[in-house]
Amino acid sequence: MEKGLKIVVIGGGSSYTPEIVEGFINNYDRLPVREIWLVDIPQGKWKLDIVGNLAKRMVEKSGLPIQVNLTLDRREALPGADFVSTQMRVGMLEARSWDESIPLKYGIIGQETTGPGGMMKAFRTIPVLLDICRDMEELCPDAWLLNFTNPAGMVTEALSKYSKIKSIGLCNAPIGMHKWLMKEYDAPASSIYMEFVGLNHLHWITQITVNGESKLEELLGSGSGYSAKNVPQLEWNKSFISGLGGVPSYYLKYFYLRDEMLKELQEASKKDGTRAEVVKRVEEELFELYKDPELTEKPKQLEKRGGAYYSEAAVNLMCSLYNDTRDIQTLNVPNNGALDFLPGDACIEVNCIVTKQGPIPVTVKKVPESIKGLICAVKTYEVLAIEAAITGDRSIALQALAHHPLISSVNDAEKMLEEMLEQNKAYLPRFFAVE
Amino acid sequence: MEKGLKIVVIGGGSSYTPEIVEGFINNYDRLPVREIWLVDIPQGKWKLDIVGNLAKRMVEKSGLPIQVNLTLDRREALPGADFVSTQMRVGMLEARSWDESIPLKYGIIGQETTGPGGMMKAFRTIPVLLDICRDMEELCPDAWLLNFTNPAGMVTEALSKYSKIKSIGLCNAPIGMHKWLMKEYDAPASSIYMEFVGLNHLHWITQITVNGESKLEELLGSGSGYSAKNVPQLEWNKSFISGLGGVPSYYLKYFYLRDEMLKELQEASKKDGTRAEVVKRVEEELFELYKDPELTEKPKQLEKRGGAYYSEAAVNLMCSLYNDTRDIQTLNVPNNGALDFLPGDACIEVNCIVTKQGPIPVTVKKVPESIKGLICAVKTYEVLAIEAAITGDRSIALQALAHHPLISSVNDAEKMLEEMLEQNKAYLPRFFAVE
Amino acid sequence: MEKGLKIVVIGGGSSYTPEIVEGFINNYDRLPVREIWLVDIPQGKWKLDIVGNLAKRMVEKSGLPIQVNLTLDRREALPGADFVSTQMRVGMLEARSWDESIPLKYGIIGQETTGPGGMMKAFRTIPVLLDICRDMEELCPDAWLLNFTNPAGMVTEALSKYSKIKSIGLCNAPIGMHKWLMKEYDAPASSIYMEFVGLNHLHWITQITVNGESKLEELLGSGSGYSAKNVPQLEWNKSFISGLGGVPSYYLKYFYLRDEMLKELQEASKKDGTRAEVVKRVEEELFELYKDPELTEKPKQLEKRGGAYYSEAAVNLMCSLYNDTRDIQTLNVPNNGALDFLPGDACIEVNCIVTKQGPIPVTVKKVPESIKGLICAVKTYEVLAIEAAITGDRSIALQALAHHPLISSVNDAEKMLEEMLEQNKAYLPRFFAVE
Amino acid sequence: MEKGLKIVVIGGGSSYTPEIVEGFINNYDRLPVREIWLVDIPQGKWKLDIVGNLAKRMVEKSGLPIQVNLTLDRREALPGADFVSTQMRVGMLEARSWDESIPLKYGIIGQETTGPGGMMKAFRTIPVLLDICRDMEELCPDAWLLNFTNPAGMVTEALSKYSKIKSIGLCNAPIGMHKWLMKEYDAPASSIYMEFVGLNHLHWITQITVNGESKLEELLGSGSGYSAKNVPQLEWNKSFISGLGGVPSYYLKYFYLRDEMLKELQEASKKDGTRAEVVKRVEEELFELYKDPELTEKPKQLEKRGGAYYSEAAVNLMCSLYNDTRDIQTLNVPNNGALDFLPGDACIEVNCIVTKQGPIPVTVKKVPESIKGLICAVKTYEVLAIEAAITGDRSIALQALAHHPLISSVNDAEKMLEEMLEQNKAYLPRFFAVE
Repeated sequence: MEKGLKIVVIGGGSSYTPEIVEGFINNYDRLPVREIWLVDIPQGKWKLDIVGNLAKRMVEKSGLPIQVNLTLDRREALPGADFVSTQMRVGMLEARSWDESIPLKYGIIGQETTGPGGMMKAFRTIPVLLDICRDMEELCPDAWLLNFTNPAGMVTEALSKYSKIKSIGLCNAPIGMHKWLMKEYDAPASSIYMEFVGLNHLHWITQITVNGESKLEELLGSGSGYSAKNVPQLEWNKSFISGLGGVPSYYLKYFYLRDEMLKELQEASKKDGTRAEVVKRVEEELFELYKDPELTEKPKQLEKRGGAYYSEAAVNLMCSLYNDTRDIQTLNVPNNGALDFLPGDACIEVNCIVTKQGPIPVTVKKVPESIKGLICAVKTYEVLAIEAAITGDRSIALQALAHHPLISSVNDAEKMLEEMLEQNKAYLPRFFAVE
Repeated sequence: MEKGLKIVVIGGGSSYTPEIVEGFINNYDRLPVREIWLVDIPQGKWKLDIVGNLAKRMVEKSGLPIQVNLTLDRREALPGADFVSTQMRVGMLEARSWDESIPLKYGIIGQETTGPGGMMKAFRTIPVLLDICRDMEELCPDAWLLNFTNPAGMVTEALSKYSKIKSIGLCNAPIGMHKWLMKEYDAPASSIYMEFVGLNHLHWITQITVNGESKLEELLGSGSGYSAKNVPQLEWNKSFISGLGGVPSYYLKYFYLRDEMLKELQEASKKDGTRAEVVKRVEEELFELYKDPELTEKPKQLEKRGGAYYSEAAVNLMCSLYNDTRDIQTLNVPNNGALDFLPGDACIEVNCIVTKQGPIPVTVKKVPESIKGLICAVKTYEVLAIEAAITGDRSIALQALAHHPLISSVNDAEKMLEEMLEQNKAYLPRFFAVE
Repeated sequence: MEKGLKIVVIGGGSSYTPEIVEGFINNYDRLPVREIWLVDIPQGKWKLDIVGNLAKRMVEKSGLPIQVNLTLDRREALPGADFVSTQMRVGMLEARSWDESIPLKYGIIGQETTGPGGMMKAFRTIPVLLDICRDMEELCPDAWLLNFTNPAGMVTEALSKYSKIKSIGLCNAPIGMHKWLMKEYDAPASSIYMEFVGLNHLHWITQITVNGESKLEELLGSGSGYSAKNVPQLEWNKSFISGLGGVPSYYLKYFYLRDEMLKELQEASKKDGTRAEVVKRVEEELFELYKDPELTEKPKQLEKRGGAYYSEAAVNLMCSLYNDTRDIQTLNVPNNGALDFLPGDACIEVNCIVTKQGPIPVTVKKVPESIKGLICAVKTYEVLAIEAAITGDRSIALQALAHHPLISSVNDAEKMLEEMLEQNKAYLPRFFAVE
Repeated sequence: MEKGLKIVVIGGGSSYTPEIVEGFINNYDRLPVREIWLVDIPQGKWKLDIVGNLAKRMVEKSGLPIQVNLTLDRREALPGADFVSTQMRVGMLEARSWDESIPLKYGIIGQETTGPGGMMKAFRTIPVLLDICRDMEELCPDAWLLNFTNPAGMVTEALSKYSKIKSIGLCNAPIGMHKWLMKEYDAPASSIYMEFVGLNHLHWITQITVNGESKLEELLGSGSGYSAKNVPQLEWNKSFISGLGGVPSYYLKYFYLRDEMLKELQEASKKDGTRAEVVKRVEEELFELYKDPELTEKPKQLEKRGGAYYSEAAVNLMCSLYNDTRDIQTLNVPNNGALDFLPGDACIEVNCIVTKQGPIPVTVKKVPESIKGLICAVKTYEVLAIEAAITGDRSIALQALAHHPLISSVNDAEKMLEEMLEQNKAYLPRFFAVE
């Protein structure tokens, strides 16, 4: 009866693509995909070709009636799409290296998802995603847009404020934590429940149960925790963690251990270059592997890349939306009252039940008093940065930066902003409009 | 490994008891009940004996290792309980008849769960339930209290404000609507999703999907809907319903069709007596049946009683709490932000995910503007009535009544209040304290 | 240095005009008025001529350099205006009589500022006032619009939501209460302080001090209070008032004593006709007096008209705006947090400090719990009725009415609405648009 | 008729006392003071004697019937008091020097009103002020407590949460800004209006009018602004200020120019010692002057001390409370809805109308989006620090510090906290309780 689904992957030449293709293959019984369209830009054609061919080999091996199409024209791909996933990087890894390196010159943390680097990435990305939304409004107005592109929280807030397309932001950190707990407690996925509070890359887990029994105190006491590869592996301060009331995301080290993280980044930058440069090398290796015409499945090496489980998260979400499963997933969505100290339209990262009509945030049992201020402070930055991304207004961009908790001098912020805008000029038409 | 659960049913002599016993038998694999304690008061001993013996016969027939115990002393039953359910009626059906008949004399709707009748029931019930909670704090502090006793929303709010016992309020209207939709659309339970907004006996369903497709407009357009036996079966006004934005609970006829309902109640009262008197006759017939020593299962006739599915709702909730299933159930719980126009501690009736740590309310996608005022107005009454129930303060009781939407004269309210308090004197020690 | 102010009075042919002219004369030192423009519609020309000539005689007698101009074209009057006051009645007293009489047929209170009558007045008035605002946006965009036209709260909310013109709603009830207290306590104006909470014609006074000492308990205990002529003079119920926590506006008798007020209105209607008809007779007498060429001041008889002190309130407000006095006045303005249980853009009636930049609401010390529900319920009606007035959508109009606390049957509401819309057809182009 | 007022000044031996005594003398016609009680602790007796004798000479010269009393026992002074003002420094200037110097060792700003220093001052001060409140509850329960003791915002929040005494927090920054604007615009006090938003020592002025005309853009554009002596005189960044939407308090340089301020403090500390040491020298000079038996008025040199206008602010506030003037003053009071993004009980610094019943906050017209996050972040710190002050819980103290925007490493925070607590041990019985 159902005629099968059409999926469009924007940024389809990404090294992550084999994972999502594997996901579609493995979940075909729940998610009857008929067409996968991998879309990329001309500069990414060589990657699209390599990855696209691997994808075709993977599907062929599976024996499933799925078509894989490659295109450089998203308007060719979008008509009638059911799900559009966006996993592109405007400016590619080169721009990421600017995000990571320029702030270091000013003694400020350079990171591609928060702080000055994250803001630049938002400036580059938001207008492009809104262009995609405008195409979707015309060509597939009922499709779901699943956005993986960082800063995922800010991008999702921008889309929900400036487009009518139904969009959801996704991050792999929650699923990564889930997997980590499964190992830690040798427990199946379904036995674990966590309550997430906060924003994308700024969340705390305020409840963790295994088979319904709370493990929160235990985990806070141990001071250990899950951390992804892309963030320096500093130890948490145990006295601090044990009083915090929630397990912090490893991204919170940028805030709670700012001095130490800055030092680490500065040293790593001298030794290995920025994270962007490290990733570039990993990616090159991956693409070498992907070229192998004998390869018909996702290679193990992909798991070493930062974004583990991204595609699993995406396929899970598509399955739940498609099948109206109403299970709980941690997503980036408008607040809608779940956190009563933030506006209703603020995008937050929080548990949602996923219905066919979309995700609905679950309220949070108890938010530790201690974390509210930091959430508000970063949300203020996000709201201003989104406004700057939309308007191209430098003054608002300066305000955004000046109010980011990682900034400790508006004078430095101003100079750094000028340099970063100039460096990113090619990707920031709204900031460099000819009047 | 798990040693089995202990259940205490307060008001165990109720005619509903065979249903809940049946529920425990049918769900034994999910809910390993070891002991059921049926508790009642001395005046209810004859009912307890009849129902208790039926329960024992039912369990025996099932062959399951469940013990059924009868007692008139709840402190004997409570130690070590896992779940306590309360389904009693302070003042029994006689008091209900006062709730229903005295207001009619003043031209005001007499109903046992809202308006002046509901307030009296709250006055009689809340102090008794708080006494039970105090016993539980001592004897089974970790047990869940599942409260069925009306007015379930107000009782639950009072318990959450004045006791540390974990309590949840339950009503059969949501599950009844669910069953009705299953028939209407010939659909399995799992394919139906509804979003409930409001208070107990004052809810609207603002989203209804079957297999993820919205049926809301269709149902609003048809003007038809689910209605329980205990409420007069007046037709809804179609023009009104189609613009309302949510399917109203049948209890809302008391508000939206107040004049018509009043007339209906007055006529029915002349013809058949009050609903209390009708129920009394039904109950007597049921107890006659229950006496039959050959009867070893819940008789069909029980379904004609108003509280259909109550026990199914209760057993479902216990299963989900016990098994940490995190499925969605419609419950009476503190708001916690789900409805942003009510205080966080206001008890509301809303979808929750049910974890082993308790239910967590889900936010509501979109509350129709039109219904906010009525929700607030009734909540104001509830807050004041709860305060009056706790303090025994007549002045606050008058304020509660004066601000209830069913009251149109504070002069009448004052007179009626005096009469009702006087009539209920035996059950209202807080209002008639010797100074 | 200041070159004098230009005032435009829309509805200048009103019987109230001599009072506002007297106000300008008496306050000339604080408010240097240079031009008064009295504007009316052709049907009101005879009144405009009579009142305008009286105004000219009053100014001449004063010897002040004020010009009085009469016109039937508001666009002639508006350019460069500093203050525009609106005191017109769309549909004149005839439409008021419909507002008051049609509901009575359905057993519902007929009143021109709340309930079905108030809604009709809002439907007739809001579009006309928005037309005036559009002219102001073009011809005097910096002028203040002081709106006296009822329902003043709803009109002000509509203007603040749908126009950029700075507008403030004014009612004479607060100043009337102030004057009444001055007599009651033989105290000068400045020694009295009151805190108003609520909406226009739906306020409570939750603090009353004379020389800083609270008189609230005393006044609540006595049960007496200020009441204007236009509302039936029923006694308050003392038990009720003493527990209410705030002195209610006399308009609240429509809600708290609904049955009694309805009976009173029905009887008065039989005896004297509606209030509209009574006012019509009073007005005719006034205009007879105004015609007298010897009359050069406001006649005493004007005080018997319902709107006592309206003009005093208006002139006070203009003085404070003009002189940046920052004194406290009770005005209808957007909430802005003063009442935390209503949205920020809801228009409320509350104390404000009046600066040259406009009024700023003062927070309310303590809102009695008991009154929140009624405020929310009426605000829901107001929001819906404003939306209906703007869109001409009958379905929304029915929702507005169905959720008004004075309505007790949506069936009756539907029929009454049809009749009232039909009767008001000539004044409701948005509801009777040719498609 | 009025029998005159009794004032108790706790910390009466302060060098500020001559100013407040001068205020009482100059405002005797508005504020009929009969008794002034100067209270100090034994260590302050020598100061109390010097200042007290000067106060007596001043009063004698004035010829007014005011008694000046000196005591080391506040319980002797409090009975029947009308106003109690608190201007003491627990730990005296020595403790201030710890607040200022220890953080510098960790590369963190040392300041006695915010950050780690402010927290220590709160820990020393809050329990002492609550002891005073307990005495007041017994001896003068109706008196107003006017608190000048820093951190004034946190102290006031603690008092409002943990005592029933009516208290108001006062800072001289708002009046200082007012005086500065008077000079800048050569305008009388009454012609200036400002809107303050934020917390004590963390406010922005979002509206400034002179004679009702806005000067905000002008002042934001110029980048100049008022600054008190006790804060390093760094220049603001003009690009930043012009986009900020409000004139920041000079205390905000600690946040917006954190790196620069830290450097400045470190250098000043090397050159002149801490601010505490500078103040100590100024104070010693002042007390030398005060000793002069010929001196009968406040010496000019007092104005060079940081707390200019403190006493003017205090006397103004007493006058307004006593006379129910309802004028507008900028005070530290519970929020009550004025800032809708903070809880109702959060103490904020905001415009209030001052009635005899107390100050009532005025809502804020428009809060710039950019400043909300910083306000929330500092409020989070304040709430936690107050809780730590009350409980003596080190873990909460660490959370407070870890979430303060001036801290960039929880590891450093932990070490610094240990050192500071140890250093302040004598003044922190709650943190060093013998179990």
